[in-house]
Amino acid sequence: MIGASADTSKLGGRFVSILLSFGYKGKIYPVNPHESQILGLKTYARVGDIPEPVDLATISIPARSVPRAVEECLAKGIKAVQVVTSGFKERSEEGQKLEEQVRKTAARGIRVIGPNCFGVYSPSGNLTFMPGADLPKESGSVAFICQSGGISYRVAGRGSGLGIRFSRVVSFGNACDVNESDLLEYLKEDPETKIITAYIEGVKDGPRFLRLLQETTKTKPVIIWKGGLSQSGARAARTHSASLGGKEAIWDAIFKQTGAIRVNSIDELLDTTIAFVHLAPHRGRRVSVVGGGGGVIVTGADTCERVGLSVPPFPTELQKKLLAVLPPQGTSAPNPVDMGTPSPPPDAFKTVLETVFIEGGIDAVIVDTIHMSMLPSGFRNGDEEYKSTLKETAQIPVDIKKRLGKPMMMVLPIGSTGADTLELESARRSASDYYLSQGIPVFLTLERAAKALVNLVGYYEHRDAISSSDTSS
Amino acid sequence: MIGASADTSKLGGRFVSILLSFGYKGKIYPVNPHESQILGLKTYARVGDIPEPVDLATISIPARSVPRAVEECLAKGIKAVQVVTSGFKERSEEGQKLEEQVRKTAARGIRVIGPNCFGVYSPSGNLTFMPGADLPKESGSVAFICQSGGISYRVAGRGSGLGIRFSRVVSFGNACDVNESDLLEYLKEDPETKIITAYIEGVKDGPRFLRLLQETTKTKPVIIWKGGLSQSGARAARTHSASLGGKEAIWDAIFKQTGAIRVNSIDELLDTTIAFVHLAPHRGRRVSVVGGGGGVIVTGADTCERVGLSVPPFPTELQKKLLAVLPPQGTSAPNPVDMGTPSPPPDAFKTVLETVFIEGGIDAVIVDTIHMSMLPSGFRNGDEEYKSTLKETAQIPVDIKKRLGKPMMMVLPIGSTGADTLELESARRSASDYYLSQGIPVFLTLERAAKALVNLVGYYEHRDAISSSDTSS
Repeated sequence: MIGASADTSKLGGRFVSILLSFGYKGKIYPVNPHESQILGLKTYARVGDIPEPVDLATISIPARSVPRAVEECLAKGIKAVQVVTSGFKERSEEGQKLEEQVRKTAARGIRVIGPNCFGVYSPSGNLTFMPGADLPKESGSVAFICQSGGISYRVAGRGSGLGIRFSRVVSFGNACDVNESDLLEYLKEDPETKIITAYIEGVKDGPRFLRLLQETTKTKPVIIWKGGLSQSGARAARTHSASLGGKEAIWDAIFKQTGAIRVNSIDELLDTTIAFVHLAPHRGRRVSVVGGGGGVIVTGADTCERVGLSVPPFPTELQKKLLAVLPPQGTSAPNPVDMGTPSPPPDAFKTVLETVFIEGGIDAVIVDTIHMSMLPSGFRNGDEEYKSTLKETAQIPVDIKKRLGKPMMMVLPIGSTGADTLELESARRSASDYYLSQGIPVFLTLERAAKALVNLVGYYEHRDAISSSDTSS
Repeated sequence: MIGASADTSKLGGRFVSILLSFGYKGKIYPVNPHESQILGLKTYARVGDIPEPVDLATISIPARSVPRAVEECLAKGIKAVQVVTSGFKERSEEGQKLEEQVRKTAARGIRVIGPNCFGVYSPSGNLTFMPGADLPKESGSVAFICQSGGISYRVAGRGSGLGIRFSRVVSFGNACDVNESDLLEYLKEDPETKIITAYIEGVKDGPRFLRLLQETTKTKPVIIWKGGLSQSGARAARTHSASLGGKEAIWDAIFKQTGAIRVNSIDELLDTTIAFVHLAPHRGRRVSVVGGGGGVIVTGADTCERVGLSVPPFPTELQKKLLAVLPPQGTSAPNPVDMGTPSPPPDAFKTVLETVFIEGGIDAVIVDTIHMSMLPSGFRNGDEEYKSTLKETAQIPVDIKKRLGKPMMMVLPIGSTGADTLELESARRSASDYYLSQGIPVFLTLERAAKALVNLVGYYEHRDAISSSDTSS
């Protein structure tokens, strides 16, 4: 830890304490010429003074001193370094020269992540990055590579809150040495990683990146949020990660050719990831929307079609069968299915869901109905019987999913965002956590669920098309 | 209250108790042949038995008995009735006949809202609709007319949570008599209503609706969420409110010709309403995005351009002035402005925001920075000094808005949706409530803020174009 400090209000100080509290199991060597001990750890004046071999260095000293520190790491035989410090190519001509020096040192035998980054979060190596003390220690199947420190932490933090577990999150900043292609090449073969996600501002070697994407998407989905494609976004990307944003048309072609999945926001990135985490490989765009309340159902069907799904009509016989178990008023089942109320009777809900899955001739079901958050009066004033009915209803999708194993998505909208309705949000979040823990993906709006499903299906469609053209050629 | 019941688990019972708890100041006459008293109110066997004149009847008895009840209301001299009951045209041929009978009675001198609806919420008349016991008693400037009961309650409930106050919310269901055009004509002249919003599945009289829209948008914005435009959505609309959904191309033309604002979800409807409530009439699409964190800023600028705003570059001199007050690292100001951290030093934040407003040559500022929700460790572990700095920072936009009165929008994203991070969401909501109470519109994502601004500006652009063509002709 070059630039370690006893002052935890400083970057270098915080980093040591974060790593300690995250439970890093290896040895930590703080390096700081002005201290002999930091947070109980023996501290060295220079990297060369450390008596044992070192695997990874983290550098958080001012930019002008970074090139020499990287040189010293190379001399010490350290294989990799992450440079957290900013103020390089993204800032000034002087910074650009410093970055060029670092790049030249790297070329002589040490890999450099950064500068201007947060570094690596890798739970199986009990390693976390800059502000990541509170990230899960449990490893998972999702990798995220990111040119923005802030976004890497947002995705890791919010994703973790949604039950996503990460294999690696790499904040790689200006990418003076290790770049998006290197990381993609690594993740393609990484056995822990099944789903690759990325936030990219600029690409260093276009043809290599394109080739790697084409190879990688054959076995793993790659979800990319591309920043800096607008004029003002490109301007900001130059001063952020010293990246050239690229052209919209070129990126359109890249996504089309490679089957990489394009997303446009952190929400869409996380939604799509959640769909891949929980749904089995899955083709087909025919869905049924099952909900309670006519308007929700009408606009739900509209939304599905608008984003590229189909909501095929049910045969009259099937409609009759569904209506037979539903209340006589305010219900309908042409597909979409309106159960008439956001809290349908458990028996009716169960029969409807089973019947739609087994006889509906559809590929997936989007359930938009158990709205604890939509039932404020019921939730607040409901008696025990009412609550137990709600609970029974809530369990039904889980049982059916286990039994039939079909793709099911759940919409649990935020009922109200006021500070006085936190109790309802608490109930909603508990329900959301529960469904996610049972392998049912949850989304805040039907639009987001539908979009995530389209992204998932689009990926497998591309994979099928590629593999059949591979076979035929 | 025809169909009133002592059993509050029934529709008719709940309705009486809701109206009582909402504080209805007029007289309530329950009508039920099997009871003599309901919730302490003298109950009548038939409407004709009520000894005094009655202004409005609400009917919640089974569909087959509704036509006769409406006849009795007409005979009693009641001017208006709302039929909550469903099971009419939307359900069956028999229901269609019943609805036709009601329509014919209405034509003889009584106005009917519904059937298949929740009725009217009108705080200045201390009247609320079916599930609306907990809606605000305070009146406001926003009207919402809606063919879906569920959506009318969602919009009223969630909107209220966001500080929107309504003049009237009318759930009008199948519109057998009072329809969207009648309501629009009323709201156009209603002095309480300044902003008109609507969820519409079908339109009874196209030419009249078009003419009224054209007239109304000259003085009041009309925000419309149109349901039932997809094949499956149209199918669902027929069984929901007995509406014909219409054709996409026709509705495109309607929106274009009239300047009515098209929205595609409840979120967009509420976001756009909030923009109109808090921002003065406003032209110009040039914005500055001011935030903390490079990735947020890059993608924020991308998003603004994608939805139709522009983020014009700042002159070099202005950039230098802004950078002079910001920390030397991780910041940039080409427009967008990256303050380097989500919690910038108060002085720097103040100077940046003022300078951008006064010298930036822009029409509005989107602030994406004070993320209590993005700072979990700071929020949880911060000392008093840190908290007071956060508080000082949070006050700055409010002061500047008061002093300079320029359009400012605030993005306060949800930091995490996990059940274990409710404390952060509580802080976020308090901040959101506070800014809304100070007249600064708040949005959950930058994309939603940008979209709301485009909707607002688009409306005033249309109004300008119309008024200049009126003058020139």
